[in-house]
Order: sequence, then C-alpha cells, then structure tokens
Amino acid sequence: MPMDINCDMGESFGAFRVGNDQEILRYVTSINIACGFHAGDPMIMRQTVRHAITNNVKIGAHPGYPDLQGFGRRNMEFTPEEIYNMMIYQVGALKAFVDIEGGELHHVKPHGALYNQSANDAVKAQAVIDAVYDLGPNLILYCLSGSLIAKMAKDKGLAVYEEAFSDRNYNDDGTLVSRSFDNALIEGEDAMLEHVSRIILSNEVMTVQNKVIKLNAQTLCIHGDGGHALEFAKKISKLNK
Amino acid sequence: MPMDINCDMGESFGAFRVGNDQEILRYVTSINIACGFHAGDPMIMRQTVRHAITNNVKIGAHPGYPDLQGFGRRNMEFTPEEIYNMMIYQVGALKAFVDIEGGELHHVKPHGALYNQSANDAVKAQAVIDAVYDLGPNLILYCLSGSLIAKMAKDKGLAVYEEAFSDRNYNDDGTLVSRSFDNALIEGEDAMLEHVSRIILSNEVMTVQNKVIKLNAQTLCIHGDGGHALEFAKKISKLNK
Amino acid sequence: MPMDINCDMGESFGAFRVGNDQEILRYVTSINIACGFHAGDPMIMRQTVRHAITNNVKIGAHPGYPDLQGFGRRNMEFTPEEIYNMMIYQVGALKAFVDIEGGELHHVKPHGALYNQSANDAVKAQAVIDAVYDLGPNLILYCLSGSLIAKMAKDKGLAVYEEAFSDRNYNDDGTLVSRSFDNALIEGEDAMLEHVSRIILSNEVMTVQNKVIKLNAQTLCIHGDGGHALEFAKKISKLNK
Amino acid sequence: MPMDINCDMGESFGAFRVGNDQEILRYVTSINIACGFHAGDPMIMRQTVRHAITNNVKIGAHPGYPDLQGFGRRNMEFTPEEIYNMMIYQVGALKAFVDIEGGELHHVKPHGALYNQSANDAVKAQAVIDAVYDLGPNLILYCLSGSLIAKMAKDKGLAVYEEAFSDRNYNDDGTLVSRSFDNALIEGEDAMLEHVSRIILSNEVMTVQNKVIKLNAQTLCIHGDGGHALEFAKKISKLNK
Repeated sequence: MPMDINCDMGESFGAFRVGNDQEILRYVTSINIACGFHAGDPMIMRQTVRHAITNNVKIGAHPGYPDLQGFGRRNMEFTPEEIYNMMIYQVGALKAFVDIEGGELHHVKPHGALYNQSANDAVKAQAVIDAVYDLGPNLILYCLSGSLIAKMAKDKGLAVYEEAFSDRNYNDDGTLVSRSFDNALIEGEDAMLEHVSRIILSNEVMTVQNKVIKLNAQTLCIHGDGGHALEFAKKISKLNK
Repeated sequence: MPMDINCDMGESFGAFRVGNDQEILRYVTSINIACGFHAGDPMIMRQTVRHAITNNVKIGAHPGYPDLQGFGRRNMEFTPEEIYNMMIYQVGALKAFVDIEGGELHHVKPHGALYNQSANDAVKAQAVIDAVYDLGPNLILYCLSGSLIAKMAKDKGLAVYEEAFSDRNYNDDGTLVSRSFDNALIEGEDAMLEHVSRIILSNEVMTVQNKVIKLNAQTLCIHGDGGHALEFAKKISKLNK
Repeated sequence: MPMDINCDMGESFGAFRVGNDQEILRYVTSINIACGFHAGDPMIMRQTVRHAITNNVKIGAHPGYPDLQGFGRRNMEFTPEEIYNMMIYQVGALKAFVDIEGGELHHVKPHGALYNQSANDAVKAQAVIDAVYDLGPNLILYCLSGSLIAKMAKDKGLAVYEEAFSDRNYNDDGTLVSRSFDNALIEGEDAMLEHVSRIILSNEVMTVQNKVIKLNAQTLCIHGDGGHALEFAKKISKLNK
Repeated sequence: MPMDINCDMGESFGAFRVGNDQEILRYVTSINIACGFHAGDPMIMRQTVRHAITNNVKIGAHPGYPDLQGFGRRNMEFTPEEIYNMMIYQVGALKAFVDIEGGELHHVKPHGALYNQSANDAVKAQAVIDAVYDLGPNLILYCLSGSLIAKMAKDKGLAVYEEAFSDRNYNDDGTLVSRSFDNALIEGEDAMLEHVSRIILSNEVMTVQNKVIKLNAQTLCIHGDGGHALEFAKKISKLNK
C-alpha cells in the first residue's frame, strides 16, 4: 500500500511568492495549507484549496505561531489556552474555504515551532490535541513519529498519522538528530532517495549509528521549495506506486 | 415587538483592552464580534463568544479590513475577490469558536470602512453578499438601512436586518448625514434618547431638515465604549421592552 | 553625463525572498531601500545598506504604507499627519542603519501607493515634502517627472530628481498612461530598450500618440525582479556610460 | 540628590489607548517610549516625544520584540544579530522624532521579554550593548540592577543606570523574586511606598527574607497604568525631592 506523501503549501503571502505549489501538487497525496499566521493569506488559502480539490489531494490545515517575519519557526512562549485558541482560529478559517469549495478537511499538522514545541511537551501537546479534537473528532493529527504527542493523541481517541522526514537523520531511539548537530540533515539527493525508499518500502530508517530501525510512519513529509524539489517529488511519487 | 439592539464587541487586542463588554452585554440582544483583522484576537474571540452564550445574546461576526492600526476605519482599495476571501477567513475563524462553544452564528455585520464602502457600491456589495451567502444562506446580513447592499442582499435571497444608528443624524432621503458635515453626529444624551425612542417605538427618525421620516430598521446599533455607554444601554434596553 | 539609474531593493521580508539585489546592484547608481512597512525588515535593511556601500551605490529610503500584505500598493486613506509621521519613522529607521554602516543617506523615494497618491495631490504632497525636508534639507526627493509634488518640492527648496520609468508609456502632456488603460506598460524588451535609450541619451520619450516630447528626468527607475531584469540592467548600464 | 524616576510611555497603538501619559509625565524625570514593535506607532511616538520635551523630561527609547499581540512580553528566540538590528531600527525611528522636535535622546531601555532575556544572558546582553553603543556612545543603558548586562555594559564603556522596581520583591542576592513565585510582586500601596522610600532615600530594599540589602540603583521604574498609578506617582515624586 502506498504511503501518504505530504507537503507544506500555500506559503506565499500577498506579493511574496513561495514554492512551486501547482507542480508539486501532482506528486503528493496530501498537503498542509498555511493559515495566515506564519504564512498564507485569504487569497492564497482559497486558491490552494481549489488546486488541492482539482488534483484530488487530501487537505490539511497547517496552523502556526503568529510570527510572519520568523515564518513561525522561532520558539515562542504561549499558554496552552493561547495555543488552543490560535489553532481553532486558523483551522476554522481554513475550514471555511474548504467548505465553500466543496472539499473536506482531512487533517491538521502544526507548523514549525508549534510542531516542534508540542511534540514532546505534555502541556503543549494536550492543547494541540484538544484543539484538533474539538474542531472535529474525525480529523487526523499529523505529528512527529514516535513523539509524546502521537501517543497522547491516540489515548484521546484521535486518529494519528505519524510523520517521517525525507531530509532528516535519525537516532537509534527513533528520534530526529537535533538541528544543533551537524548531521541533522541528510545531504545529497542520492542519500535522501535511499532514505526515502527505505521509509516508503519498509517503514525503516538507517540511523546515524548505522543501525536499521523500524518506524511507525503513516506519512512522509517532503519539501516543495528548493532547486530540486520538483524532480525529487516526481521520483518519490514513482517509488510510492 | 422589541427591536434588536446590537453592539460591537470583542474589540480588545492582546494587552490592549477596549470597552466594557461584560456589562453592556446584559442590555443588548445581539453582538458583533471582531474577528482579528481590525481588532480582536483568538483569546478575546473565544471569551466573547462564551459571554454571549451565557447571556443568551445573538452572535454575529464582525469582519473588517486588515488594518489593526487604523481599527479598520480607513478606506482601502480591495478587489471584490479580496473582500470575499477576507470575509470567508474571518467569519470562518469566528464560527469555529461558536461551534466549539455550542452556540450558533446568527448574523454577519461588516465593520467600519468595509461596512461603509460596501453600502452603496454594487461591486463591493456583491462581494460581501456572496461571502455571507456562501458561508451560510441562513445567516442574516446586518447593513445600513436604505442602502443598495440591503436591496441587493434581499434580491439574492439573504435575510437582512437594516440597521439604524443611535448617534447619527439622517437626511430626508433616509441616508446618514455624512461625517464630513458638522452635524453628522447627534450631540447630547437627551437628543440621542429622543432619537432612539423614535426608532424603537415607531421606526422613524427626525431628519436634520426637521422632517419625520419612516425607516425600515430591524436593528439598532449602540456603542459600548465611551463614558455613558453603559447608562445609555440600560435606558435603551428599558425603552425596548 | 550619465543619468542616475535607480532600483527598488531590500524588498524581502523574513523568509520571503524577493529580487536579485546583489546582482542588480552592480548595474545601477542608486537604490531605494524598503523600510519595513510594505517590505523589508531590520535584517534585510542592514544587509542591503552594506551591499550598497560596498558597491558604491547611492542609498535612498523607500518608505511605504503599512500594508505588508498589499506590498504598499493599495490606495489607503491617511491624514497628512499620518503620512508625515510614517515617513519620519521609516526613514529614521533606515538612516540609523546607514549611519552605523558609515554610509550617507542620499535621497527619499516614496513607494507604491504613497508615491502615486502624493504625486498630484497637494495635501499629501506637502506632507511628503515636509517630512523629507525635516529629516534633512539636503536629502533629495525622487518623484514623478512633471508632477505637482516635484514643483512643490522645488518651491520649498528641496533638491528633486524627477523620475522617468523604463517600462511605462507616456501621454503627450508628459504624464504616465494610467494603469487602467491596456497600453500603460511598454511590452517587449526591444521597445523598452528603445524607450530607455531615448530617455538616457536625450531625455525624451515617444508618447502613445507617437510624438517625441522632452522630459526633465534626472533619474530612471528600473525593476530588479522578473526574468530578464538582470540582463536588462546590464544593457541599460552600458548605454548609460 | 533625587533619584531618576522612569516610566514606560507611548504604549498606545492606533485606536487602542493605554495609560495616562500626560498626567504621569508631570511626576517622573525620564520616560521610555515604545517604538512600534510591541506598542506605539508613528503618531503616538511623535506626540509622546512632544509631551516629554514640553515637560522637560528625559527621553529614552523603549525597543521591544515584534509581538504586538503579546505586548513584547513573550519570550521569543532571536539571534544576536536579530536583536541588534531590531534595536537599531526602533531606536533609529524614535531618534528621528526626537531630532525633529528638537529634543535629545537620553537613554535606551529594552522592553519586556527583551529586557528580561538580555539581563543575564551574555550573548543577548552583548547584542543589546553593541546596538546602544553603535547608536551613540553617549546613550545611557537602563537595565536591571545587579545584572550581568549592567556589568558588561560598563566594561564596554557605556553609561548605565541600574534600575530598581517599585512593585517587585527582591532576594537576598539582589535579584528579583521570579514571577513564577507568588511573592514576586509587592502587594498593597503602603508596602510599595515603604519599599520605594527605602530605595529613594537609602538605595536599599528589604528582601523577602527580611534582610535589608544595598542596591546600586540610579533609576526607579514606576508604572503609568492601573487605578492608583497617578496618585502613587505623585507621592513618589514628593518623596524624591
């Protein structure tokens, strides 16, 4: 069975154009649409929803921190209630476009620092989980494979897609190599393709300690920007048939 | 039958606190909640929705231009598509809070420059009407009494509450005296109370030319800020029984 | 004597990257740096100032309306005092970077809707002129060739560079063909080069009525984005020796 | 010799009004003006500068994090270069207003999370210090009494006013009781007045362990908002003669 391949989209803002959405869209099975806080605006959101429906790709909301300048990647200190409410707001806004265009909201994937800061912090994780659950108990939460939030979400009764990354190295315990280490990222397209093949074909990764370990990933994240993104998406899409 | 008395609420933003919402809420029958563009934020929106439900007050969305510094009151040039999409976004966000809190969205009232610029401009009016209709054909549009948008909305099949203002003077043709004239506003609490009584009791106003004319108002807008707002709200509420 | 060739720069924002500044910089004689309201941020501003100094290019401030989503291109209604103060703020911020990097602020060019709305409106023009004058009576105002603001600024004693555009068609009276007409823009690189040559070599343009008229331009604006921008900049730079 | 009494001002934003600046201004000797990132806007900044000059009060810049919704109080992760540049930008903008109004910039006091996060973090402290120094080696840095940044700034050759707080409890080592403890704030006006008297008259505080310790404070921070702010400011001003 092919694996879900997801990609962040709708990350433009006004006249600021990001990515190559319409091309990449043809080679993924689900997308995560920015909701206006870290990227995206009402025009972009609607257009991206339309493209997703036309291409029969599953639609997810991609809420982030209110930090456009930092693209939602800077750690910020929020209360659980602030996290909950910023998710309701953003996902609600996106859902309105999905409803109007006759689509269906399939999942929610927190973005950037919200994704990272909630992955293994029980308080923030609970805020994210409660928001998704209250927005719709049938929504699927996309979150880091092997994380605390994945476990907590399942305990709550939410459907979860644990997520693997196409460009990140893994430790023996299944966690990502921290970005503070030099080998956080997989360098080179061949190495990435080998890494991705292993994930798609056998749900495994080779760790930085050269051990092959099992993941429990239901979705693989690829990137839509960068020089080779489209070429890479095509290859992964072919692998995944 | 008493008239609907509406008031703009949830106009705080972060640490910036505006109005006296919890007190005023007890003396009105419907409120218009700011949706984060000209005022309001996710925390304020949720809290305001809760208060409205607790007080059994009808909830409306109050979308505005993306101009926090100008409080959505500055005229800005938007395409109809931009207006449509900024309304879908904001009303969608508010609706998510209403749904989660177990309430019901009753109406949409455009704010400030969006309200004024769409009142008698067919293109902008159509964008507003289409957005409300697509968000829910049962939503009621609150708009300026006697305006083009009121007529167009009814033609489209939308329910409309034509709105009268508690503090604005009227011309003989039922339009508001422009704010560019000195007598745009009714000065003095006694004069305002007399004006409001006439609206509530007989749906009429005395124009600046001293003529009594008929309105077709289904809702009256009062203000929640200013020194005497609460006292005034109480008096109007009593009048309106 | 070669003509001043100016280009808008520093129009990125956070992770949103715009233009090809470092390359284009080598083929112009002055640049206009966005100041954070319609584009630009403190990181980008400093970097752009540095590049300008390294390349010995004259530095201008490029203040705009506080409308990042609209890139400062949407008409907005501001009081003269608001226009004055938003210019002081933005130019002051940029000047601090110029001072710190050991450069010199050469000119101010209003951006987008601020440029257009102040070109021939006496009240807005006066606000722009007063701001530039108060920021430094030696600053040069870049503004539309033949405009009211150019005349008013000279009356005030400001130095003015009247500006011609590399991609805009002109009427017989020296005004730009309005963007509401189909022939506002010069289409095709050959036509643009011919147009630009005429400006640089003889300070003339061929109007849309096929009449050659005199301009009084001291600067020519070229664009840094778009597929052929760099190639075009090189050609113009060569013409201008 | 009386102690410098400082107060944050110009914290309104557009239609959002904060504080009682014009009244409080009469009872303090220096003010810290918000620069548009966490609060303040160009209109407010200019007005506040004017009021300060009229009242012969020393003017400081009060730069903060770009987080209007959080009023600059949320911890955020910035690189030292980002901190440096956001300070240059904001202080530069304020300085332009001060210059235009014929005043003089006296000091810089970082706001909120920027103040706290740089107080005892050597990397962030250095970024703040470098920015102030590069903006003007005669500018005084207002910072937490007894902090690392105070020491580092003096080492750099900057003039420093170490700051005491009118409403905060102190530990025996001269640090503030953390806001995560219940007794972080001094409750009750009498207790605050006693605390403030001790600071003003003998540069001492009574710690939460009931020990009287010496401070090395050159300035005392009071608050301009809250019900009793004005009354309190008057009393402190009288004490301080």
